[in-house]
Amino acid sequence: MELASLIRYARGEEQVDLLFKNARVVNVLSGEIIPTDVAVVRSRIVGLGDYRAKEVLDLDGAFLAPGFIDAHVHVESAMVPPSEFARAVVPRGTTAVITDPHEIANVLGLDGIRFMFESAKHGPLSMYVMASSCVPATNMETNGAMLRWYDLVSLKSDPWVLGLAEVMNFPGVVGGDEEVLAKLRTFNELVIDGHCPGLSGRDLQAYAAAGIQSDHECTTVEEAQEKLRLGLTIFIREATNARNLKALLPLVNQNNHHRICFCTDDRQPADLLDEGHIDFMVRTAIAEGIDPIMAIRMATSNTANYFRLHDRGAITPGRRADLIVFDDLHAPRPRLVFRGGRLVAKDGEMLVPRRQPTTRNLRGTMNVNWEQVDFRIPAEGTTARVIGAIPNQLVTENLTLEMRIEGDEAVADPDRDLLKMAVIERHMASGSIGKAFVRGIGLTRGALASSVAHDHHNLVVIGADDRSMMTAARHCAALGGGMVVADGDRVLAEVPLPIGGLMSPEPIEEVRRTLDGALKAAASLGSTLHDPFMAMSFLGLEVIPTLKLTDQGLVDVDKFDFVPMWVG
Amino acid sequence: MELASLIRYARGEEQVDLLFKNARVVNVLSGEIIPTDVAVVRSRIVGLGDYRAKEVLDLDGAFLAPGFIDAHVHVESAMVPPSEFARAVVPRGTTAVITDPHEIANVLGLDGIRFMFESAKHGPLSMYVMASSCVPATNMETNGAMLRWYDLVSLKSDPWVLGLAEVMNFPGVVGGDEEVLAKLRTFNELVIDGHCPGLSGRDLQAYAAAGIQSDHECTTVEEAQEKLRLGLTIFIREATNARNLKALLPLVNQNNHHRICFCTDDRQPADLLDEGHIDFMVRTAIAEGIDPIMAIRMATSNTANYFRLHDRGAITPGRRADLIVFDDLHAPRPRLVFRGGRLVAKDGEMLVPRRQPTTRNLRGTMNVNWEQVDFRIPAEGTTARVIGAIPNQLVTENLTLEMRIEGDEAVADPDRDLLKMAVIERHMASGSIGKAFVRGIGLTRGALASSVAHDHHNLVVIGADDRSMMTAARHCAALGGGMVVADGDRVLAEVPLPIGGLMSPEPIEEVRRTLDGALKAAASLGSTLHDPFMAMSFLGLEVIPTLKLTDQGLVDVDKFDFVPMWVG
Repeated sequence: MELASLIRYARGEEQVDLLFKNARVVNVLSGEIIPTDVAVVRSRIVGLGDYRAKEVLDLDGAFLAPGFIDAHVHVESAMVPPSEFARAVVPRGTTAVITDPHEIANVLGLDGIRFMFESAKHGPLSMYVMASSCVPATNMETNGAMLRWYDLVSLKSDPWVLGLAEVMNFPGVVGGDEEVLAKLRTFNELVIDGHCPGLSGRDLQAYAAAGIQSDHECTTVEEAQEKLRLGLTIFIREATNARNLKALLPLVNQNNHHRICFCTDDRQPADLLDEGHIDFMVRTAIAEGIDPIMAIRMATSNTANYFRLHDRGAITPGRRADLIVFDDLHAPRPRLVFRGGRLVAKDGEMLVPRRQPTTRNLRGTMNVNWEQVDFRIPAEGTTARVIGAIPNQLVTENLTLEMRIEGDEAVADPDRDLLKMAVIERHMASGSIGKAFVRGIGLTRGALASSVAHDHHNLVVIGADDRSMMTAARHCAALGGGMVVADGDRVLAEVPLPIGGLMSPEPIEEVRRTLDGALKAAASLGSTLHDPFMAMSFLGLEVIPTLKLTDQGLVDVDKFDFVPMWVG
Repeated sequence: MELASLIRYARGEEQVDLLFKNARVVNVLSGEIIPTDVAVVRSRIVGLGDYRAKEVLDLDGAFLAPGFIDAHVHVESAMVPPSEFARAVVPRGTTAVITDPHEIANVLGLDGIRFMFESAKHGPLSMYVMASSCVPATNMETNGAMLRWYDLVSLKSDPWVLGLAEVMNFPGVVGGDEEVLAKLRTFNELVIDGHCPGLSGRDLQAYAAAGIQSDHECTTVEEAQEKLRLGLTIFIREATNARNLKALLPLVNQNNHHRICFCTDDRQPADLLDEGHIDFMVRTAIAEGIDPIMAIRMATSNTANYFRLHDRGAITPGRRADLIVFDDLHAPRPRLVFRGGRLVAKDGEMLVPRRQPTTRNLRGTMNVNWEQVDFRIPAEGTTARVIGAIPNQLVTENLTLEMRIEGDEAVADPDRDLLKMAVIERHMASGSIGKAFVRGIGLTRGALASSVAHDHHNLVVIGADDRSMMTAARHCAALGGGMVVADGDRVLAEVPLPIGGLMSPEPIEEVRRTLDGALKAAASLGSTLHDPFMAMSFLGLEVIPTLKLTDQGLVDVDKFDFVPMWVG
């Protein structure tokens, strides 16, 4: 809005568009609950107090707070694009998210990031982007794109880009890797997010000195305290597979909470739909004894302040009218959500019509050289390194087990929970394929295939026999990516994710339904894990200990190098 | 320092320059006192904890805190340029100030601002500048320069310019004055400071909505609370002539203090030398019951955060090594001050050699058309409006008194404390002169003249007789500006301020000594005020109620218009 108009409205010289009457405003700046009215014109708050208005909404003493802000999220983990992600989180009170689109960037590079922007534009959710810093994660994998520092320069001038996304390559930072430093230099006057699980002592000092300003990987109060003292803002995370909120709440107090924000990192459809988003974190924090205004600050003004979003995160004249209404300060459950002054969600339901994502600019991403795909593993010994999956953990064990040999091949041995695993390069049809064995998935027969595999997102297949594996893998590719459960020649269940092999163009409820079906089918084949696809998606991530498989082979993460499968 | 070096030092791979051993670090981010060591290389902090160092300074448990930051100060009020101002405040622990150079700008425009920059460069104090928004203050005066929005554009690109200085023209903001709005638009992505004494209700809403982000004019907790709730950061001020600290401390609590900073606005040499600077505010706040870490935050990290100075205000790796050492957390009195890793002051004494200001680019500013200077006031009635000075206040009374008439002239009547006052335009020798009478100064004979008169800084003369007035005025001009006490043809005392008629090139102690002499001389002439020059410097400021005199005539500030002297 033009400045002169804004001032006239604020003075009450003209009727405002909308007046929230009898609100109890959560003033996150002064730290108070203030009974007052709030006037809005178009997308802006223009004043607090009584104003002549075209439309009056009597809140009858309900609470009015700024919309929630997620400090760090990979939208792709919801398996839907931003427009659909918005349908899940906006009714929960989230009006802005800061995203790192590095899943799609690993598949489609800058084109993938542009798709995310396009999907978010003019939607009900403000989606800010941090330029993905670690694409690919390492050079021990083949991913779909490489983003160098000079590629990221092109993102810098976009007003929705706030800085450099989680610098996961902390060995590169502390080791002074020239490419990593070039990225840090490129963004040095903007916000630079960190990602340094367990980093401590001098290496952490170096990481902070390099200009990295936050971390969302803390799992203990001690770890977070050390980072906070060194100037890192702490994002407390409550992801589907990394739930740190309750463990970290004892960190939070009146003296330090303004340096702490909330984020979700990765949340699957079921968690978004059943538990919620940042609202879930706010309610949990309050239930655990955190003062409600402090909890709401960590979900609003603290995040706006950290990301230098000066027009958000509080209810004051001139700021964006991103507002939520709820009745219980001790368990905020937004029943009305306004974005830019417009009512966009009510009683948990989106009021904005659903938009079908525009995928016309996206190429197909399941580019597999099938001639090279052969799941057979020649018997070159009797004992081998085996990946040991651990329920609900991203780390694996590095096991050494005796192999089952049939003829001149090592084969799966479901009776001993020893399954075959393959990671098939699927971006440039190079024919690169990594093969090994895994324990802890529990299939007694059949196979699972998925194109969601952090961060390279190659095609991962795990199975009890090669035929089922081929059925699952081929069907996954035919879908354009997704998750498949197969048994012999038969496909039992599928979750099509044709957008980059990561996201579905369908409504999130439908994605959740098909995913539930796939989990049920996997269980029918003997899977002992709650979500074997989630486990699979991290068995190929060579930056998390201990033994992982990429398309290029087995990686001993502790040694940060390849190791042969056979040990004897 | 180059990023790669910084990281190597932080990792301890090379010897650091300086290690503060056994410090108790005031961690303003985590809100704790942490016993640790602090390593410095060149101008940067590189790490906390033990490091191999070329030089070790054992603090033996003394406190180490970030250097203090003054959120808003007119350096000119100290009557010395920035290089000399630094000598007064750096030994007090101030390592950065945010200045509005609007005194010198009213005299010399952009040349004046450039002089301030030049005087601060490479000195021991980081001086940031806010672009002066109100030069001149109104069009009811003649000042030395006019800064339009397009003049300010040239300042914006300077890395030491942080935004737009106190927008004192709040009627212009709320009235939508096009020139004021153009300035706000020019700086809308930077920091914009406010100045709105007593502004409240809808006008305050409009002022906040316009994007103004702070205020330093609050005098009551209620006023500050209203502004804080509307999103303005509150600068608590403790100036020589506006002492708001004790009145506002009850505002401060754990819940809101991160939106509150300390500033000094205007401090005279005697206050700087005797009481101190921001350190004085910190000590006073703690003595009044504020938690020491909170008090230090308001003097450091809060200010850095508000002004987006991300490399200052806390002791963390990568930030500037602007550090102070003190022994008593409950009465911090810096005994060592480091700026950019270098010891610059010790035990209240500056260690950096004094620099003589370079004034060669500054023209003389006492340009008076003496042919037009005539102090006689024709008797055009019997009663007249008289300015009523009130001790220790900037506001005046609007009195109506019977005049003493001699022949066809109205003359001073010292027996009734009725003195003559003239404001002589001194910038472009226009011959413009305003004349009136004033009560409350108390001279029984003689005259005072001064070129310090907010904000136009014309030549103000007050006296018991015209001859003394002419002596004082002419001598003031001959000095190139300053303060003069005269009696008849005799000059009794002088404070030469040849830099713009506002500042002295001499050491601040010398300025203070001459000023003390002038005050003593004024007292010998009967002055009843502690500092009649201070009072005089505000009798011409037509934006503060109630009756003021500019070179263009008497101004009734309530009507915001000229009024005739004679009423009957």
